[in-house]
Amino acid sequence: MGYPALLLSLLVFLAPGTCIDPRRVLRTLSSLHLPTNPASRSSVAKNYSVFYFQQKVDHFGFSNMKTFKQRYLLADKHWDKDGGSILFYTGNEGDIVWFCNNTGFMWDVAEELKAMLVFAEHRYYGESLPFGNNSFQDGRHLNFLTSEQALADFVELIKHLKRTIPGAEDQPVIAIGGSYGGMLAAWFRMKYPHIVVGALAASAPIWQFEDFVPCDMFMKIVTTDFKKSGSNCSVTILRSWDAINRLSSTGSGLQWLAQTLHLCSPLTFEDIPNLKEWIMETWVNLAMVNYPYASNFLQPLPAWPIKVVCQYLINPSVPDSMLIQNIFQALNVYYNYSGQAKCLNISETATKNLGSLGWSYQACTEMVMPFCTNGIDDMFEPHQWNLKKYSDECFKQWGVRPRPSWIITMYGGKNIKSHSNIIFSNGDLDPWSGGGVTKDITDTLVAVTIKEGAHHLDLRANNALDPTSVLLARALEIEHMKRWIKDFHDNVGRQP
Amino acid sequence: MGYPALLLSLLVFLAPGTCIDPRRVLRTLSSLHLPTNPASRSSVAKNYSVFYFQQKVDHFGFSNMKTFKQRYLLADKHWDKDGGSILFYTGNEGDIVWFCNNTGFMWDVAEELKAMLVFAEHRYYGESLPFGNNSFQDGRHLNFLTSEQALADFVELIKHLKRTIPGAEDQPVIAIGGSYGGMLAAWFRMKYPHIVVGALAASAPIWQFEDFVPCDMFMKIVTTDFKKSGSNCSVTILRSWDAINRLSSTGSGLQWLAQTLHLCSPLTFEDIPNLKEWIMETWVNLAMVNYPYASNFLQPLPAWPIKVVCQYLINPSVPDSMLIQNIFQALNVYYNYSGQAKCLNISETATKNLGSLGWSYQACTEMVMPFCTNGIDDMFEPHQWNLKKYSDECFKQWGVRPRPSWIITMYGGKNIKSHSNIIFSNGDLDPWSGGGVTKDITDTLVAVTIKEGAHHLDLRANNALDPTSVLLARALEIEHMKRWIKDFHDNVGRQP
Repeated sequence: MGYPALLLSLLVFLAPGTCIDPRRVLRTLSSLHLPTNPASRSSVAKNYSVFYFQQKVDHFGFSNMKTFKQRYLLADKHWDKDGGSILFYTGNEGDIVWFCNNTGFMWDVAEELKAMLVFAEHRYYGESLPFGNNSFQDGRHLNFLTSEQALADFVELIKHLKRTIPGAEDQPVIAIGGSYGGMLAAWFRMKYPHIVVGALAASAPIWQFEDFVPCDMFMKIVTTDFKKSGSNCSVTILRSWDAINRLSSTGSGLQWLAQTLHLCSPLTFEDIPNLKEWIMETWVNLAMVNYPYASNFLQPLPAWPIKVVCQYLINPSVPDSMLIQNIFQALNVYYNYSGQAKCLNISETATKNLGSLGWSYQACTEMVMPFCTNGIDDMFEPHQWNLKKYSDECFKQWGVRPRPSWIITMYGGKNIKSHSNIIFSNGDLDPWSGGGVTKDITDTLVAVTIKEGAHHLDLRANNALDPTSVLLARALEIEHMKRWIKDFHDNVGRQP
Repeated sequence: MGYPALLLSLLVFLAPGTCIDPRRVLRTLSSLHLPTNPASRSSVAKNYSVFYFQQKVDHFGFSNMKTFKQRYLLADKHWDKDGGSILFYTGNEGDIVWFCNNTGFMWDVAEELKAMLVFAEHRYYGESLPFGNNSFQDGRHLNFLTSEQALADFVELIKHLKRTIPGAEDQPVIAIGGSYGGMLAAWFRMKYPHIVVGALAASAPIWQFEDFVPCDMFMKIVTTDFKKSGSNCSVTILRSWDAINRLSSTGSGLQWLAQTLHLCSPLTFEDIPNLKEWIMETWVNLAMVNYPYASNFLQPLPAWPIKVVCQYLINPSVPDSMLIQNIFQALNVYYNYSGQAKCLNISETATKNLGSLGWSYQACTEMVMPFCTNGIDDMFEPHQWNLKKYSDECFKQWGVRPRPSWIITMYGGKNIKSHSNIIFSNGDLDPWSGGGVTKDITDTLVAVTIKEGAHHLDLRANNALDPTSVLLARALEIEHMKRWIKDFHDNVGRQP
């Protein structure tokens, strides 16, 4: 999720006045999500059925009577109508099958919670396209891509399941999601507590809006991850930008850069902002997927990948050419751990499982997350957050203007203590934890922190190399969910 | 509010296959609201300022960037920034000035609660027309008339007030409304607890949807009001329908009927369903405004008007002609208490302060309230609830189909116990109490019942003739509101 928004915003402040390059956006918007983990995936077989449910394109108006098919996956192997539950994955910005395969936690706990698993695809992603191939044509077709409409889809889908599956009516539903999907899970419980008894909101940066957190927090956490993972690692990266700037000032320098970084295409001077963004994006991605075991994100990655990367970045005080050679070695860990890549492509789309266009639109409307860097507290070139430019770029691209305060207006920002039954989990290594809820708000709005956790590690399948902190987090999460389920069953028939 | 929906639905089952007569709808949809009460109004001077706030036409999409001016009234004579509050009237389907002048309770408690009073006009009513004179042109222009959009208007308005009025930021806001406005107040607290600390939902029939209450409940309460107000009163009314049917079967009978009822226009056989609806509507109106003191609704009315009406309806066993003469005397209490009316007009619009077209659309989209009668437990001719016909009429009139379960999907129906700080007040005499919350749900979702109360009597100004039950209700309401205000001020600075 938000990472694309971040990159979009960086684009704006990196290259003021320039138009967003759609190819570039496509790539940057496509690089967030989670590795499949063949090792753990095989441990619990993911046998699900695929269904489609007819949804209204517009839940909030009556003149548009169009409908579309929302895809969802259902697995009921462990479901027990007696004291069981329904775990409902609030799909985020991508193909639901991919999310399903990357949310091993739900599969791991299904038996214990006697749970039916449902994975609902988010509208405008995967196969759930309100206007088919025309869905991204223009602002008019994209008008129904909002978090509110997505939540209403979830509500209608759950009502449909309860109506049509015998025994489902009297089952508590728990919303589970990660990243943007984690925000959706939390908001789902806030707005529709009559539909879901609780929510597990993993790595959900619900406060990464307006000025709830300093705009430089995200990149500070990325920097800290590198700082802690190797001596001089972040300083080396910090110095690399100037080295690139110096080297790219001559034609031969540009040629050398492209060659040394094994890029697939030659570089022009105009490509340099893109090159730097691409490198920056790599470090951010690494911070998000800095998992304790080998995983497979875009390309295969080793365990604790930042540590591996940092082995090449121990000396910041070498000449520019040496520095860039080391940067290449580091990038190569991320892009070529398998050794199969012939060259590195700075405009390459990372994975097709994410809906890049959809998220780019969402970042231009509701999901406005301010980011900035100062080059002092972080390892990046200084860039300010510029809402005006951001808005202008959005207007150019989609014909819409963002509403930076809408999400807070709608979902309450920091004033959410009257809600209940939400677990906010965050990994300390995850840059998104900066905008997350990391302290208990009340007895039932609880924060779970995972010291050694990157981006929603807790939602991933069990792994022999899981650190204790994530095991504890999952245990706590299960405890809360069990209580919600028990409370529900205890209260059945006691409704007013 | 809902009364128009009731009448709309009756139209559908009374005259299957016939089209809704716009004139008729206009009248039936305009006859709900509250008497001005000159006596009590003068006791607290209503000095307010009128303002306009630029609202987005569509809060839930980004492609429509149009805005419109929402009217609101503000009175701050008693407002004290130190420990004070903001009482926010959630405007319903009519002119906000009229509501302001008919909600004396807020004026009466302003000093005690050190409150700023705000009366917000509902979109598509009064002067708050999203597309000016074109607002009701067709379904496309009416597309933004929903309770969700109205609530979002309220939220944005409150944020605006807090931003622009020094000292308002740190003030608790309490939502107050009656009838449809009472539902809005309750839903406001449910959906935006970060904006309002509590809600007083007076005579809010939030369960008058789907099958939450039997469809004949409303008319049963109307009947009970008449039954209790005079010997044989309801039986006389019950018999009157057949008398009308018999008399209207001949040309001379029609002529006699029109003459005896002092109608302004002659009657044809086709008018008879309208005539009966108009009479039925009169009895329903009387049940809603059966106040303990003289009030001025449409026409001036005596105290306990049903008792006065029933004085003419003591003998059900007289010949048809005598029965109809007595019915005329009863109707005349309602339509001609002042003695000024030269004739009675069965297609007369009752008051222009209500937005009849707007409500007719709302009843055809979100506000689908099933009503029926059986002629056994109530004093009306039997009519079934027929959703199919209702929907077809809506489609003919507005090009929309109602979604009968949407309100419950959105706002939770009976499963609302996780919310807090809502007072549901209901008068036992009020037919709308059947769909209201009349028992406590939790410690903070409380029901206040008013034994001698008609439609939101508690929101009316103090009156020397107020029964003890309404005095107690208001005292309870004030106690709750004071607690919410205190809790807010006690917690300022303690937010997470």
